Amino acid sequence: MRAEIITIGDEILIGQIVDTNSAFIAKELNKIGIEIFQITSVHDDSTHILQAFKDAENHAEIIIITGGLGPTKDDITKQTLCAYFDDVLIQNDAVLAHVEELFAKYINNTPISDLNRKQALVPSKAKVLKNAFGTAPGMWIEKNDKVFISLPGVPYEMKALIANEVVPRLLTHFKRPFIVHKTVLTYGLGESVIAERIADWEDHLPAFIKLAYLPNLGKVRLRLSAKGSSLPEIEQEVSRQLAMLMPMIADIYVGMEEDEEIEQSIGKLFTQKGKTLALAESCTGGKLASKFTTNPGASKYFMGGVVSYATASKEDILKVPSQLINQFTVVSAEVAQSMATQAQKLFNSDYALSTTGNAGPTKGDSEAEVGTVFIALATPNGVFSEKFEFGKNRDRVIGKAVNKALEILFKEILKN
Amino acid sequence: MRAEIITIGDEILIGQIVDTNSAFIAKELNKIGIEIFQITSVHDDSTHILQAFKDAENHAEIIIITGGLGPTKDDITKQTLCAYFDDVLIQNDAVLAHVEELFAKYINNTPISDLNRKQALVPSKAKVLKNAFGTAPGMWIEKNDKVFISLPGVPYEMKALIANEVVPRLLTHFKRPFIVHKTVLTYGLGESVIAERIADWEDHLPAFIKLAYLPNLGKVRLRLSAKGSSLPEIEQEVSRQLAMLMPMIADIYVGMEEDEEIEQSIGKLFTQKGKTLALAESCTGGKLASKFTTNPGASKYFMGGVVSYATASKEDILKVPSQLINQFTVVSAEVAQSMATQAQKLFNSDYALSTTGNAGPTKGDSEAEVGTVFIALATPNGVFSEKFEFGKNRDRVIGKAVNKALEILFKEILKN
Repeated sequence: MRAEIITIGDEILIGQIVDTNSAFIAKELNKIGIEIFQITSVHDDSTHILQAFKDAENHAEIIIITGGLGPTKDDITKQTLCAYFDDVLIQNDAVLAHVEELFAKYINNTPISDLNRKQALVPSKAKVLKNAFGTAPGMWIEKNDKVFISLPGVPYEMKALIANEVVPRLLTHFKRPFIVHKTVLTYGLGESVIAERIADWEDHLPAFIKLAYLPNLGKVRLRLSAKGSSLPEIEQEVSRQLAMLMPMIADIYVGMEEDEEIEQSIGKLFTQKGKTLALAESCTGGKLASKFTTNPGASKYFMGGVVSYATASKEDILKVPSQLINQFTVVSAEVAQSMATQAQKLFNSDYALSTTGNAGPTKGDSEAEVGTVFIALATPNGVFSEKFEFGKNRDRVIGKAVNKALEILFKEILKN
Repeated sequence: MRAEIITIGDEILIGQIVDTNSAFIAKELNKIGIEIFQITSVHDDSTHILQAFKDAENHAEIIIITGGLGPTKDDITKQTLCAYFDDVLIQNDAVLAHVEELFAKYINNTPISDLNRKQALVPSKAKVLKNAFGTAPGMWIEKNDKVFISLPGVPYEMKALIANEVVPRLLTHFKRPFIVHKTVLTYGLGESVIAERIADWEDHLPAFIKLAYLPNLGKVRLRLSAKGSSLPEIEQEVSRQLAMLMPMIADIYVGMEEDEEIEQSIGKLFTQKGKTLALAESCTGGKLASKFTTNPGASKYFMGGVVSYATASKEDILKVPSQLINQFTVVSAEVAQSMATQAQKLFNSDYALSTTGNAGPTKGDSEAEVGTVFIALATPNGVFSEKFEFGKNRDRVIGKAVNKALEILFKEILKN
């Protein structure tokens, strides 16, 4: 069972927005055993869209289309669907009522316009999928044994439609094979070193299991994907293969990763253990705090943090002794440890994580080389720190510092 | 002059990573007048890749391929290029020397392996494009009047290759039309209301200028794209059209946006005016700090911030009077204003921005409805706050609070 995704919009092809919709759709369809054959991004141009429809119909049984459903002139997906299916637009009263309701509820001082009313026009052959959060309806059009699904490009609206309308309908409409993905998260070795180590095992994987290496700023994910008609059988074989893999990577293994990011695992562990966390961030500049607070329930364990960007703020707010800064400079193990200990005190938390370093591009308040970062962790049993050299690229230095800090915290909270 | 982007990798099609490379490449090529016709993401599968090569060659003069150049078994781009161009892999000594140099420099305790040496094998018809930051070389292969360019999928390596190798070569290799994009940033009205307001003007745009609406969490960008063979002519016409547009949107106009985000404009204004900024973040949880500190030079004006997530931290660190919290609750204008004023004092800054609200999904330390957010700004002349209702979706509440806080700060610093 194959699907293809077509994203429509000039803004994607001039690089003004990154297409995040496709990854979301691919993930959700994979979970129910539907493979994405191809993702194609095309212009708001009817000839081009029609060609993409035709190609996709040759590749796949399910064609998911996002974008081009807005009320403005550059949005032409509905007209193009009509051209493709030899259809006409007709007014859908349920959609019109919904548009009117949304306006009455959320946009008090703006009268509903003819443009907004146009949102209620849909191809006569389409079943309407209700878009609870917006005016552009989803549409489901069947043609022989294929189905075309058109969704709005606004991520929030598209996601709700996929979860509440598209996935349930696909489940009843098609018979699918099962797909199982298991991803092992490792830290500390490069892709090619791991590949050499496990080459023998990889060579003997059965044909229905594929292995992929996904490296990213100091971590490598190893992803096993299995496909088959019997779920217990493929699950059992994946478990058997994982059991063989594990002893070979014990020293670099951090955990299994499902949909979960490491900060979510950390959040769960802190909540389970009833422990609390605080932060003192210099070079990571709020990125660590932002990682934790993105997830609901963070207030259960996350007390807060200080972004002590200017040197003065390390002294004034964190109360790092100025003599320590003068003697060792702001980018030092001593200052990192003091930042962590002070944050632990200030926020009255069990643990406190700190970062201080020079992300570049030029040297700041310290003589430290660009790329030098100290990470410290204050625990109920004391404080420790580590020094790292993360290269010369600012974004990557910050990204690696965030990942490494999360790794250090994860390993520590796992132990206690 | 048209290009097409082909991204290769199962990880994209199962949704494990979001393809950010394409947007970057599209933006850079657009700047030199090369239009992206289509972006296609395909599996690590040679039949599929060959089909994509063939389709792309029919659509475009320039085919840019990313991914599939790693040292592991799932990386098959080079072999597939050989199949397509009826070519063989040969060892490139310069690449081998570069791989050895990288290992000697960065990976002290890992010996270079046969897998790493394989990175030096390239199709005999390819010109090598030096990848300064990684072991996989870029490749440039010409066929009749077309050119295929293969780049590694690691964003950092790909970006450097585009800037230092690909763009300079394209500039000398092809004659191109000029493209001018101008983007107007507006806050406060929806896409369809703006469209009605400017419909007359839009209808009379010349054919070589296209208009697009790009809405995102409380802001709408209006993008004009013009293409032509005379740069002064299209620039003049775009300016003329903008001059006509401006009076119609004066009340919602925030600024022109080139590649610049609003936090970068704010950073420039603060630096020019010699003013400083501090933050007190509750519901935005570090995201505002992270916006500012992502950009180099932030230390010139950004003093730091407190992420006062737990109520206790608002009292203990920010010294918001507990009586204020008891009387008005943590989600109130009074507490928002006190947070801003206290941050201004603590960090000794000219301005301080604060957020407090309930992002959901459930009510927290306050009885405030999910979606209620107060944003306060302390200035050299006093403090003010505004109340907002940002809906029920956690990610969107946080996103809208961040955008609105940046808007408030931008408008204020612009005035003074």
